[in-house]
Amino acid sequence: MQAAIQEAQKAAVIREVPIGAVVVLDGEIIGRGHNLRETNQQSTAHAEMIAIQEACAKVGSWRLERAQLFVTLEPCPMCSGAIMLSRVEEVYFGAYDPKGGTAGSLLNLLEDQRFNHWSYVEAGILGEPCGQLLTDFFRELRQIKKEQKKLKKTSQDE
Amino acid sequence: MQAAIQEAQKAAVIREVPIGAVVVLDGEIIGRGHNLRETNQQSTAHAEMIAIQEACAKVGSWRLERAQLFVTLEPCPMCSGAIMLSRVEEVYFGAYDPKGGTAGSLLNLLEDQRFNHWSYVEAGILGEPCGQLLTDFFRELRQIKKEQKKLKKTSQDE
Repeated sequence: MQAAIQEAQKAAVIREVPIGAVVVLDGEIIGRGHNLRETNQQSTAHAEMIAIQEACAKVGSWRLERAQLFVTLEPCPMCSGAIMLSRVEEVYFGAYDPKGGTAGSLLNLLEDQRFNHWSYVEAGILGEPCGQLLTDFFRELRQIKKEQKKLKKTSQDE
Repeated sequence: MQAAIQEAQKAAVIREVPIGAVVVLDGEIIGRGHNLRETNQQSTAHAEMIAIQEACAKVGSWRLERAQLFVTLEPCPMCSGAIMLSRVEEVYFGAYDPKGGTAGSLLNLLEDQRFNHWSYVEAGILGEPCGQLLTDFFRELRQIKKEQKKLKKTSQDE
C-alpha cells in the first residue's frame, strides 16, 4: 500500500485528486497508476484503470488471475468493474468512499456472486494516511478557492 | 444504433465478441468503439470505453454532459461506471445482458440516484439485430470448437 500512496502523492503534486494504485503479481509490482482525469481530460483515467492497463500490457494478457490490487480509495463502479473483468484475485483498499464506493459502501460489486468473478476484499489498509491525503487536498483546494474569491472581490472594489 | 451495429460487425470480423458503441453530440458521432479485448489483451478494451475515450479526446474534456451513447449490448459495471463518470446524458442499448448487465438486468447503476450522476436509459433499440450478432458469433464459435475437437480425435486415432 505504501507504493499506492506514493502514486497518490504523484497525483497531488499535479493538482489531481490524490488516489493511487498498484497491481502486484508474485510479489512484484507489474502496474502503477495515479489519477490523471484533469491532466488527460479523460473520465476513465482513474488510478486503478491505469495500473490494470499497465499490468495487462506487462503480462501480455487481459487475465490477472493471481494478482493483487492495492488502491488508496475504495473503488468506484468503473474500477470495480475493471477489477472483475481482469479477474484480480485480491483487492486491498485504504479509505472508504461513502459517496461512491462499490466495494462495501454503496454496493459490493466485488463480492456480488451473480457476476462471473469475485475478489477477496480487505478494507482500511493504511486507511488513515490514505484518507488524510484526500482531506489535505480538499482543504487546500477550498483555501485556494477562498483566496481567489477574495482577490476577485478586492479587484472589483478597487 | 446502426453505427453501433457497424462497429460490432468490425469486432466480429476480427473474432472479437461483437459489441459496438458510438457517442453522439449535437447529432454528430464524436466517438466510436468496438470490443478489442482479445486483440489488445486488455480487460478494459470494451466498445463503450473506447468510444468514450475517443469522445473525450475529441471535445478535449472528460465531461460529455449533453452526449448520447448508443451500444449494442447492455453495459457491464465498468462501462456503466465510465458512462456515469463522463456524465453522458442519455444511453440507448440494444440487447439485454441477463448475466452481467447493469442498466436494468442485474443492477441499474445508471439510474441509481445515490451516485452523483444518472442517465436517461432506453433499452431494446434494434435489440433483435444487436442480439442476433452475438447469437451468430457464439454459434459459430461452438461449431469451430466442435470441429477442432473432431480433428484432434481423428489425428489421435490415426
